[in-house]
Amino acid sequence: MEQRIHNFNAGPAALPLPVLATAQEELLNFKGSGMSVMEISHRSKWFDGILEDAVVRMKRLLGAGDNYQVLFLQGGASTQFAMAPMNLLPDGQAADYVNTGTWAKKAIQEAQILGKKANVPATSQDRNFAYIPKNVSYTPGAAYVHLTSNNTIEGTQYNGFPDTGDAPIVTDMSSDMLCRPVDISKCGLVYAGAQKNLGPAGVCIAVLRKDMLERVPKTIPTMFRYTTHAEKNSLYNTPPCWSIYIVGLVLKWLEETVGGLDKMEAQNRAKAELLYKAIDKTGFYKGTADKEDRSWMNVTFRLGSEDLEKKFVAEAEKAGLGGLKGHRSVGGCRASIYNATGLDAVEALVSFMNDFEKNNG
Amino acid sequence: MEQRIHNFNAGPAALPLPVLATAQEELLNFKGSGMSVMEISHRSKWFDGILEDAVVRMKRLLGAGDNYQVLFLQGGASTQFAMAPMNLLPDGQAADYVNTGTWAKKAIQEAQILGKKANVPATSQDRNFAYIPKNVSYTPGAAYVHLTSNNTIEGTQYNGFPDTGDAPIVTDMSSDMLCRPVDISKCGLVYAGAQKNLGPAGVCIAVLRKDMLERVPKTIPTMFRYTTHAEKNSLYNTPPCWSIYIVGLVLKWLEETVGGLDKMEAQNRAKAELLYKAIDKTGFYKGTADKEDRSWMNVTFRLGSEDLEKKFVAEAEKAGLGGLKGHRSVGGCRASIYNATGLDAVEALVSFMNDFEKNNG
Repeated sequence: MEQRIHNFNAGPAALPLPVLATAQEELLNFKGSGMSVMEISHRSKWFDGILEDAVVRMKRLLGAGDNYQVLFLQGGASTQFAMAPMNLLPDGQAADYVNTGTWAKKAIQEAQILGKKANVPATSQDRNFAYIPKNVSYTPGAAYVHLTSNNTIEGTQYNGFPDTGDAPIVTDMSSDMLCRPVDISKCGLVYAGAQKNLGPAGVCIAVLRKDMLERVPKTIPTMFRYTTHAEKNSLYNTPPCWSIYIVGLVLKWLEETVGGLDKMEAQNRAKAELLYKAIDKTGFYKGTADKEDRSWMNVTFRLGSEDLEKKFVAEAEKAGLGGLKGHRSVGGCRASIYNATGLDAVEALVSFMNDFEKNNG
Repeated sequence: MEQRIHNFNAGPAALPLPVLATAQEELLNFKGSGMSVMEISHRSKWFDGILEDAVVRMKRLLGAGDNYQVLFLQGGASTQFAMAPMNLLPDGQAADYVNTGTWAKKAIQEAQILGKKANVPATSQDRNFAYIPKNVSYTPGAAYVHLTSNNTIEGTQYNGFPDTGDAPIVTDMSSDMLCRPVDISKCGLVYAGAQKNLGPAGVCIAVLRKDMLERVPKTIPTMFRYTTHAEKNSLYNTPPCWSIYIVGLVLKWLEETVGGLDKMEAQNRAKAELLYKAIDKTGFYKGTADKEDRSWMNVTFRLGSEDLEKKFVAEAEKAGLGGLKGHRSVGGCRASIYNATGLDAVEALVSFMNDFEKNNG
């Protein structure tokens, strides 16, 4: 293997090296099966073991009780933008959608395409989504409150879930699921595309509180019903076996190598603090999000000019620091420092930033 | 690596060993990127290369002109059962669905759930789907004719597409796409879950004739519209990068190692003839499909009793021949001999069958 880079991609993103090493080692012959994980039947004892292990670990890490079910679906969070209202928002009722940025807006749009009633009780659009709205008055009787717990593009993050009263929270945690312990007991549905903090692209995790399943109408196509996948334990049709396998290895790494979510939280806090400290030091770098709402996962910042930002990204790449360009819709720079991106990578980035500032300040 | 088995799984199924070897070799560092394919951005030059190569090879192998577009979607053929009528069957019009077995029935059901008009101009249900209906009278003005080109469970296969007049063919080729050259010019849509003959689970190939896109209503959720994925070249949201990468390697193997679809057809014909000859030899084994409609991909057969079938499958597995149990819905035995299952595997199976017959006949 040649040199690997420090990977700050927003997603698909870095995976833990031990996970990749295991996948590589087992690729031609999974646990004596004589087959690759890509070649085993999804109805074999080998895949049963992979799936069961991933489900158990996910529930344990989330602190999810027996009233929750973990599903492995396809189509990413973008498909959940449609599936959540199709399944959980009865016609005639309304749901609340807090608008905290690009992905929240897409979720709202999908509810609207379906002719569903999506209220927006709060938005941070007035300041380019640089903050998370506080003290929101949710609609009484809302079927659910939809939150985007971490805003990958704008670099903001909920610091714990707000009190939404009787309305269950439906939350897109694509970019911060399992970055630290959270209380999901208020959540009716947590969903996340795996390719940021949980594994490779090609699988979407949906954690449903079982009472939510009672809302699911039988009139929607089989594959788009949560009940279909819940009743068959994600095996109604052939699931994305390889991606689930890798997610399982990541969860195992989280529990057995990192040592659980408390340890992960400490590491992520240290990484984020180190990087934001470097950004705040002199004014050469400018963080784009309000300090109290800054994301631990996606650290967004600007430099003095777009030319300087281009130079920063290009020189960083030459120095083995990849993926630092901001999302094409907002520009600037972004360092995504998910679970799998180590403190060593952040230290290397901070060191590069200091040098770059010296040479260009 | 320990011993690999001869893999007769129906899907997920065998992959070409050189494909797996390449995937293993590149797993930690794809082409000098310093990242795994699972870690590279779907908007990077590396993934652009993977996607473009897979699309070009697929079109070349299919003989698809510029009027066709290749999409990589998620959710398997089961999702296409819903997406095809949602997108291509306008309310008020009818489509024809030929009922050739389990998967055809599921396609019909999804059209019905959507409230669409699905005619069934022909079915082979009268003889347990042991044949492909011939000389079918299709409904005049049908929006399309849906065919299941190979019936994985029942072991039958269309030997070329029938003349459906003006109605474009919409066909589920999940278990025989690229097993031999076919004329897709009559097809408005060809779709296939990759995990049988094309690659790993987690990606579904949809090849659309571009005039079909004009039918797509704007009122369906973004992710379920073919136009969404066509306009963004399968990059509207994060695609299943790893699965597309492996499909690309399989297509490269088909072109460069096998030598194209004519060569693949010759190999598949030889494999199927050898196996059916062994089945027909004495009456100890009984093929379940009519001879003229036998599948080259899924060879279904029975033995004298269910106990004997159980013994056959168990002893075969001990002999390193895996996946020979028939689908749980029909019982019996099934050897799936997709492109990646070599003649050597079929020879080993035939040799085992001869021995088993000697010992149990």
